[in-house]
Amino acid sequence: MSQLTAKGLATKARIVAAAADLVFKQGVAGTSIEEVRKAAGVSGSQMTHYFEDKRALIRAVVTHQADTILAVHQELGKLDSFVALDAWANLNIQQQRLRQCEGGCLLGSVAAEVVECDAQARANAERGFERWEAVLRDGLTAMRERGDLRPEADPDQLALALLAAVQGGALLTQARRDAAPLEAALNVALAHVRSLAA
Amino acid sequence: MSQLTAKGLATKARIVAAAADLVFKQGVAGTSIEEVRKAAGVSGSQMTHYFEDKRALIRAVVTHQADTILAVHQELGKLDSFVALDAWANLNIQQQRLRQCEGGCLLGSVAAEVVECDAQARANAERGFERWEAVLRDGLTAMRERGDLRPEADPDQLALALLAAVQGGALLTQARRDAAPLEAALNVALAHVRSLAA
Repeated sequence: MSQLTAKGLATKARIVAAAADLVFKQGVAGTSIEEVRKAAGVSGSQMTHYFEDKRALIRAVVTHQADTILAVHQELGKLDSFVALDAWANLNIQQQRLRQCEGGCLLGSVAAEVVECDAQARANAERGFERWEAVLRDGLTAMRERGDLRPEADPDQLALALLAAVQGGALLTQARRDAAPLEAALNVALAHVRSLAA
Repeated sequence: MSQLTAKGLATKARIVAAAADLVFKQGVAGTSIEEVRKAAGVSGSQMTHYFEDKRALIRAVVTHQADTILAVHQELGKLDSFVALDAWANLNIQQQRLRQCEGGCLLGSVAAEVVECDAQARANAERGFERWEAVLRDGLTAMRERGDLRPEADPDQLALALLAAVQGGALLTQARRDAAPLEAALNVALAHVRSLAA
């Protein structure tokens, strides 16, 4: 498996994307390998070639969802101003509304399902959250260095709190089918960041 | 089932408590009806008598976890002062530390696993979160009425943000096996509440 051809890599990526889509809609427990195989349009032997079992596939899904979120953040650009942070919060809220508040966070929902079942999947989720947090922390650090935020602003704490607001807000939004919890969580976390403006 | 004897109610409660315990440690997908039956010390026919299938049992687990959290809040007393809110936050953080940051939130972790699989379980989770939110909202409303919080403080928004901080903080804490995310999330949400002091 260490020497996948370009075609092999594409097939593997197609399987992971199909699995991520199904898991987001139906959960890990509600998604079978057979459904993923059909959705990806591959044979049983191809499935087994790329992923020895469901556990291996789900681990890849966790990392895939983190990659998807990071790609969106890449497009969004640096989160190093109050305007950029507001746009980021609005994007998170808009995404939930577009999905009728179903599914929760791409990464958080699958993470919650696997974190106590599989140590490697937990480690992948931790790594995904860390990468996301780093985007927020880098932006906040730049704001402090530029003097937009006062020196006592703690980018580590603020980044964690913003990410937790997204995660908790998304779960409550998912349970309630209403974006109000995510809006409230982000409003409050961002109000605190703004209170640290220089 | 509408006319359970006291003994029947006790047996049913024992099954739900055993299921809640196993689901918290292993997740819904990782817990079988047979494991629950053994842990509760009941027969197969008793299991089927009280819960026709796993789905029915998990719905009861969701409500049981909400009841457990509400009972703790009952003991804690009203959350209608800054001192009480700080004690509440510290209790949440302490609970995670005592559990080595495993398992996440009693209600949030099971809610995340079932919300897209079963509409009734989702409704039970929503109701559980609402009851929890109401405890926070009632305390914040009392603080505003007493004049501890300024009139522009919005108890609905603040209660949602505090609950989201617990949920998101607990998930990140669970993924990282470290209480720092929960601490950061609660510190930031409470700092905002404090900024609204009269």
